Amino acid sequence: MENETNSSQAQIRAIIYERVEGVNHKDVNALMINHAPDATIFDVLEPLHYQGVEMVRERAEKWLSGYETAIGYEIRDLHITSGEDVAFCRYLYHVTGTLKSKDEVDMWVRATICFQKTDGEWKIVHEHQSVPFNVETGQASLNLKP
Amino acid sequence: MENETNSSQAQIRAIIYERVEGVNHKDVNALMINHAPDATIFDVLEPLHYQGVEMVRERAEKWLSGYETAIGYEIRDLHITSGEDVAFCRYLYHVTGTLKSKDEVDMWVRATICFQKTDGEWKIVHEHQSVPFNVETGQASLNLKP
Repeated sequence: MENETNSSQAQIRAIIYERVEGVNHKDVNALMINHAPDATIFDVLEPLHYQGVEMVRERAEKWLSGYETAIGYEIRDLHITSGEDVAFCRYLYHVTGTLKSKDEVDMWVRATICFQKTDGEWKIVHEHQSVPFNVETGQASLNLKP
Repeated sequence: MENETNSSQAQIRAIIYERVEGVNHKDVNALMINHAPDATIFDVLEPLHYQGVEMVRERAEKWLSGYETAIGYEIRDLHITSGEDVAFCRYLYHVTGTLKSKDEVDMWVRATICFQKTDGEWKIVHEHQSVPFNVETGQASLNLKP
């Protein structure tokens, strides 16, 4: 059971670092290969929510293609909690780069990723990524640091 | 195992609806009774993250006391995934009311709540609540509807 848990944690950690690689290489396929077909996403940008791996692909394509430079995607404080067939993890990530619009991106984002094990494989069934907002200004808080 | 899962789902559902009751009655204790002592929170408002049940209490007190009227807290699309000792759920909620500042609140928020079972009891170990933002304006998206 301890080994099973360790093995699950290693598998989930590998999925998260495949995401880092995927972003670094602007490889859309790597960003959707670990999702369940009907995964639900609460994303950093509008809309409120969306569902399904095809939407994950569409959004990832749009995101990755918006950058003129390479995309920095540094992960901090990855914490994984895994059971036999249900798991979740949370982390902060630092996105950096220059958009095709010439805008510079340099922001920290919160991520919570939820998994289910199906046919022996961990799959992402839900993810939630966001920045908080400032109640005085109504602006998304893009300048916070952990 | 099926019954165990059903029982877990019922317990987690009860925790979420205790939260609804807690908000409706502006009862801070009800909003922190189900948290693990070192729970980590990614909240709707700044900061980026915080940790510990005392911070949960402090933030809840501030939130609840900011309203002049009762607080509406309508939950939609609650979906629970539970294993033996790890679980998570997601939902959308509609917050409504009038602040002491006379500002009207009427917004939909995304919530992902993550649980671990300790000594037979489900406890919240992590939660993530947010609204997305609009990339054109940089404003938090407070007018979206599911």
